[in-house]
Amino acid sequence: MGDKAVVLLSGGLDSATVLAIARAEGYRCYALSVDYGQRHGSELAAARRVAREIGVEEHRRLQLDLRGIGGSALTDSAIEIPTRPGEGIPVTYVPARNTLLLSLALAWAEVLEAWEIFIGANAVDYSGYPDCRPEFIRSFEQTANLATRAAVEGRGRFRIRAPLLKLSKAEIIRKGVELGVDYSRTVSCYAADERGHACGVCDSCRLRAKGFQEAGVPDPTLYRC
Amino acid sequence: MGDKAVVLLSGGLDSATVLAIARAEGYRCYALSVDYGQRHGSELAAARRVAREIGVEEHRRLQLDLRGIGGSALTDSAIEIPTRPGEGIPVTYVPARNTLLLSLALAWAEVLEAWEIFIGANAVDYSGYPDCRPEFIRSFEQTANLATRAAVEGRGRFRIRAPLLKLSKAEIIRKGVELGVDYSRTVSCYAADERGHACGVCDSCRLRAKGFQEAGVPDPTLYRC
Repeated sequence: MGDKAVVLLSGGLDSATVLAIARAEGYRCYALSVDYGQRHGSELAAARRVAREIGVEEHRRLQLDLRGIGGSALTDSAIEIPTRPGEGIPVTYVPARNTLLLSLALAWAEVLEAWEIFIGANAVDYSGYPDCRPEFIRSFEQTANLATRAAVEGRGRFRIRAPLLKLSKAEIIRKGVELGVDYSRTVSCYAADERGHACGVCDSCRLRAKGFQEAGVPDPTLYRC
Repeated sequence: MGDKAVVLLSGGLDSATVLAIARAEGYRCYALSVDYGQRHGSELAAARRVAREIGVEEHRRLQLDLRGIGGSALTDSAIEIPTRPGEGIPVTYVPARNTLLLSLALAWAEVLEAWEIFIGANAVDYSGYPDCRPEFIRSFEQTANLATRAAVEGRGRFRIRAPLLKLSKAEIIRKGVELGVDYSRTVSCYAADERGHACGVCDSCRLRAKGFQEAGVPDPTLYRC
């Protein structure tokens, strides 16, 4: 029986691939999805499907309504989701999002005594979010091992695993296909409709479509039109 | 007009003192209370009173139900709150709590462009929680400045301020009295009733009572009996 791992699972392409990688490494996976009031709620339905198909010990969903904080096109309906690439970090950046997601994963991991925490952060074909960079991941890992009773008492040491960090979107897709991930189940679009059908024009849709093209893999994404 | 600061405000003795310190330093304070399903919900009513009396620009309350994670006497009703001091870190430790609270404060601080984040962590008369130690605070500060757009784009640098870190409970109380804090308004008890009346026997009650005694300040705490 493998060791335990907590896997952050949004229901998008990246986190589905990460779950498949963790499973392939032999971990018993505890998937965590966080409903933070993001517009693309159909991602969470996708997370359920993905967790079931790839196989997890448990899939837990937590509510944390970041609409009370706002500051992002994903959590404030007054900010429009851009349909063209802009300069710099886009308005879809959610303040401190990965710090929050990793903190929640850490809390659950401590209760489970799961020493590995997997996250689908990627610093190649990404939107320039600061909390997707290797230096952030390393720093959070250090903080995690100072923050927790389990680590301080020497029962184990938490590792933040971001296996996609240095892969291009095409490499991520090839890896996932190799591991049998059914990407038609995943939803990446920032403005997906209730059925999970994608808009095709947001930042996330563009990165995803380009990835399938470059990987030479037929794009199974369901688009609205 | 002073700079902005986000102040984590539980409604307990420590965080009320921290708010008074931040105000005395001239900051415009944005108080953040997090309802994480803790048993002592009357703390949150106390937070409202304290915020009003000491004076804040805004007091925001966020829901994050950590009962979905459990692992602590404060978030799992199956674990009893101890009434005698034990050895090591007590079961009232909440996994990754200060990491989560600071992450939420960071998210709001980034939206506000408030570069100071105040927390009432204390490493002297405390329960041995790992996330109340100076090395944790320093590490979180480093992570915060790698995690956020505002910091990475050079608009400012976040500072995590824990002005009580090295004070005894008696010193905290003397400081607060000097600044005019009305401690009868605050609730520290882990098992306070709906009116905020304290049990007098939990870890938190004992530390607080000892603090008033050592400070030579009459204890204004409302006890149940």
